[in-house]
Amino acid sequence: MKILGIDPGSRVTGWGIMRDQSGTFSYLASGIIRMKEKDFPARMGHLFEQLTDVINKYHPDEVGLESIFVHRNASSALKLGHARGVIMLACQQQGLLIHEYAPRLVKQAVSGYGHADKGQVKACVGLLLSQSKAWVSDEADALALAICHANH
Amino acid sequence: MKILGIDPGSRVTGWGIMRDQSGTFSYLASGIIRMKEKDFPARMGHLFEQLTDVINKYHPDEVGLESIFVHRNASSALKLGHARGVIMLACQQQGLLIHEYAPRLVKQAVSGYGHADKGQVKACVGLLLSQSKAWVSDEADALALAICHANH
Repeated sequence: MKILGIDPGSRVTGWGIMRDQSGTFSYLASGIIRMKEKDFPARMGHLFEQLTDVINKYHPDEVGLESIFVHRNASSALKLGHARGVIMLACQQQGLLIHEYAPRLVKQAVSGYGHADKGQVKACVGLLLSQSKAWVSDEADALALAICHANH
Repeated sequence: MKILGIDPGSRVTGWGIMRDQSGTFSYLASGIIRMKEKDFPARMGHLFEQLTDVINKYHPDEVGLESIFVHRNASSALKLGHARGVIMLACQQQGLLIHEYAPRLVKQAVSGYGHADKGQVKACVGLLLSQSKAWVSDEADALALAICHANH
């Protein structure tokens, strides 16, 4: 089974795909979608198209998405909401079911520790997927979401 | 010129279309998109499809969308953000430019008073478009957005 993990953001969204063969994980692909457009609707269009391309290229079976635990202010929650709505739509339009996981649960799934920092998450994801790639944090977080979903 | 006004909501989104012929307004159509699905991604899919149908049916030239003035809590701002992201995407995918207007500006545009209540907005929109239809509030608010855009 191929699992797509998505770490949503209103400027950068990370994605990562791994294969889970009866508990044996292997890395397939990952990347980030950077939204540089000043115009917010254009940013949403870019996100939708890029994510749809990823889904059409790798054909994942399931999706793990970071759930939001709203500690931020209302204004950044609103912006993040726009990106999440578009991400949900892109998955839904390709017939993919979305499973949501809280950040703490994701950290726990890869490192055994709910308060692991970015560097620890990156290192643990590398170990679990037997990769020594220099992922950016959003990419590693997305792969961590895929691993978290595989474990549930 | 045909203007589409959109009043976004995470459960009910209102839409309204009017024609502006050199300052003479006429009502074309309006309605609400009700999202009853429990599953949030399914709700987003429903919103996207219904709004795309409206755009394809009436071919508006421009869009007026309510901007958010974030007085709400972060959790409802996040939910509303999801719907707005999908609305922006639906318009963007059909090549429509979106113009955003604050609620107070919209009320002022139709009633001359920035703190008009729902009933007053509905009555003023009816007068401006020479209609005596029993619109629901989300529909009237969407038409008010279209009128507001026509005035700018």
